[in-house]
Amino acid sequence: MSLQIAIPIFDGITALDAIGPYEVLSRVPGARVHFLGLYEPGPKRTDNGMLALTADGALGDVPHPEVIVFPGGHGTRALMRDETVLAWVRAAHETSQWTTSVCTGALVLGAAGILNGLKATTHWLLLDKLSELGATPVSRRVVEQGKVITAAGVSSGIDMALTLAAHLAGADVAQAIQLGIEYDPRPPFDSGSTAKAPAAIVELARRRT
Amino acid sequence: MSLQIAIPIFDGITALDAIGPYEVLSRVPGARVHFLGLYEPGPKRTDNGMLALTADGALGDVPHPEVIVFPGGHGTRALMRDETVLAWVRAAHETSQWTTSVCTGALVLGAAGILNGLKATTHWLLLDKLSELGATPVSRRVVEQGKVITAAGVSSGIDMALTLAAHLAGADVAQAIQLGIEYDPRPPFDSGSTAKAPAAIVELARRRT
Repeated sequence: MSLQIAIPIFDGITALDAIGPYEVLSRVPGARVHFLGLYEPGPKRTDNGMLALTADGALGDVPHPEVIVFPGGHGTRALMRDETVLAWVRAAHETSQWTTSVCTGALVLGAAGILNGLKATTHWLLLDKLSELGATPVSRRVVEQGKVITAAGVSSGIDMALTLAAHLAGADVAQAIQLGIEYDPRPPFDSGSTAKAPAAIVELARRRT
Repeated sequence: MSLQIAIPIFDGITALDAIGPYEVLSRVPGARVHFLGLYEPGPKRTDNGMLALTADGALGDVPHPEVIVFPGGHGTRALMRDETVLAWVRAAHETSQWTTSVCTGALVLGAAGILNGLKATTHWLLLDKLSELGATPVSRRVVEQGKVITAAGVSSGIDMALTLAAHLAGADVAQAIQLGIEYDPRPPFDSGSTAKAPAAIVELARRRT
C-alpha cells in the first residue's frame, strides 16, 4: 500500500512552500513523496538563488499521484502560461484523491481551471489574482473545497498538510506527526497576518516583496 | 555589507530544520545563506531519502560566517564523532556573531564543547543527551544564552530564526519577514509539545520515531 504524493518543483520556487508539507506528509504511513521537475529531473533553484532542491523525477513520471501539492514562488508566473504543466495538473487532478496548493501554487491550479467556482486562498499580496481565475478569494489560512485544499502564504503549508494528514491517516497519526516535528509554534511577534500586523509593518512587507 | 550565514547540510538531515531558518534569514537585508556540505558540495539526502538539498560549497569555503545554523536529523549522530566537523564548528564559533542550532543540531554543538555550562534545548525525545554533553537541558522552544541560541525539534527553527532576525535587523524587519512568509500558525490540533499532547499521542510519536 503506497500513497504517491507529487510535489512539482521549478526554478523560482519558495522552498518552505514545498518543504513544510513534505516534512508532514512524508511521515504519513505508506507515503512516498516525489519531487518532480516540470520537464526533467535535476536541481531547481529557489527564488533567491541561494539553494537548489533536487528533483528525482519529472511530471511525466508520476501522471496519477494520489496527492498533488503545488508550491509557490516567483517561478509560478511562467507556469501559469505553460500548457504542458497545466495539462499535467488537469489530468492529475482528474484522478487525484487530493489536489492542494501552497502560496502562489494556487494560481497554477487556477490557471488550469481547477479553482473555477471554488473558494480558495493564496499569499495575501496576491489574493485578488484568484478572482481573475474564476475563484472566490478567501482570506483564511487553509481553505477546503471538496478534494481541493489551498493554503495561504509560504508557512501555511504546514497547517494545510496536518489537515490533509488527518484526512489521509486519521487524527491520531496527524497529531503524532505534529509532535514528531514539535510543531508548537511560538512566534516572537504576532505579525503573521495583515489582520494583526501594524499598518507600518504591512507597508514594509509590501515594499520588501 | 554582507551577512554570511552558514548552514551545514549532510546525508540524513531533516529538511525543515534547515529550510525553516533559511526561509526567514535569507530575507534579512544583506544576508547570504550558504548551504555547505561537510567535505564537498553536491546533493545531500534527507533522513527519509525522498529529497536532496544541494550544497553549493563545503565547510572549508566559509570558515568565518557571522551566523551558524546547525540543523538536525539522524545524520548528526555520525557528525558528533567527526573531528573535522567539530573543529570547523569550534573555529567558526570563535568568530561568529551568533551560533545556533535546530533539533539534534544542538548535539553537534554540544559535542564540539560549545554548550558546556549553558542551558540548551533540542528535540524532546533527545533532551537527556544534552546533559551528557555538559549542558543543562531546558524544555523550551527557543533557548538563548549569550550568542548561542538552540531551538527544539524540527519546526522550531522558524521561531528561532525570527528571534535571530530581530537581533540582526531589528523588530520591524523581523515582523515584516513574518508577514512575508505569512507565519500566522493555526495547527488543526494542539499536540505540538509533550505538555499538551494526550499520553497516547506521545506514546505513538515515540514509537514512530
